[in-house]
Amino acid sequence: MDSRHLLVETMSELMWERGYADTSPRDVRERSGVGQGSMYHHFPSKRDLAVAALERNVADLLPAASELDGPGDPMARIEAYLMRPREALKGCKVGRMTQDRQVREDPVLLAPVARAFAQVHRSWVGVLREAVAARQLRDDLDPEQLAHTLMAVLQGGYVLAIAQQDPGPFEAARDGVLALLRRNS
Amino acid sequence: MDSRHLLVETMSELMWERGYADTSPRDVRERSGVGQGSMYHHFPSKRDLAVAALERNVADLLPAASELDGPGDPMARIEAYLMRPREALKGCKVGRMTQDRQVREDPVLLAPVARAFAQVHRSWVGVLREAVAARQLRDDLDPEQLAHTLMAVLQGGYVLAIAQQDPGPFEAARDGVLALLRRNS
Repeated sequence: MDSRHLLVETMSELMWERGYADTSPRDVRERSGVGQGSMYHHFPSKRDLAVAALERNVADLLPAASELDGPGDPMARIEAYLMRPREALKGCKVGRMTQDRQVREDPVLLAPVARAFAQVHRSWVGVLREAVAARQLRDDLDPEQLAHTLMAVLQGGYVLAIAQQDPGPFEAARDGVLALLRRNS
Repeated sequence: MDSRHLLVETMSELMWERGYADTSPRDVRERSGVGQGSMYHHFPSKRDLAVAALERNVADLLPAASELDGPGDPMARIEAYLMRPREALKGCKVGRMTQDRQVREDPVLLAPVARAFAQVHRSWVGVLREAVAARQLRDDLDPEQLAHTLMAVLQGGYVLAIAQQDPGPFEAARDGVLALLRRNS
């Protein structure tokens, strides 16, 4: 791996593990083994490196969400996406960033997060509309709203799991919303 | 306000706004106006002060959740609790702490968060069981599971709102799960 790529990978990992505020350029150099001169050559500031790392984390999240786009039976796609294995105690690489003040207050850092969530929301709306059209979901449910609900269950499930240091609450939250969906067919 | 109380209030605010890692003892002194000697007299370390601030934030969260315990119509209590005004762009004072590595990795700091969530979960399970008993919810839904789902929707709703810097996704997530519950009566 070239040193630029190595820096981005390392920053991406550290931001997931520790957040932005809690990751120093020195932490990145120590873990990556890349020297100070090379680091500042590629990324003049920690913020520049963070933008590249966020873009990388978003690129990691989106292919999974694109499974929602199909093809195949819409309700089966919904279930498969909800049930895919997730590291509940690590949380979402992208959603986690919203809790970091320095990210949240910086429109440049927050932009990749907002874009990623908007794109996942569109995928959810699409598959929910297909499920309604296929009479797999009641037609008096609002796909736009429900898409936010399903995203929130996953994001909030991480919060509950981390609080209890137990993936159980994440799994229960997800299974609970799936039960509600199935009973609305 | 005495200086101990002032320090706890200030730490509580700063942890909500910035998180733990990103709040320095100096930030607390500057905002509270309490001097260094007095601070170290009351709280020998930032961690001691943080534990007191977390206990205070938990004490803030729990009375609201105790509205779930009743008395009154269970479904009306569920709706009232979900619909109570919340500062979607600030997030949850307690849930937010799970995203702070230094809190998450420190059992002493995480304990008040875990206890608070466990208590809110018990209140949710109670009211959901009452709603099932009153035939306001289908009896094939699992109140334990559904309690996690409803908590996750609120916690995850904050994440979505902060990502878009718009309370809309929080409200939509909450309205969406309420619509699912109403259609399961």
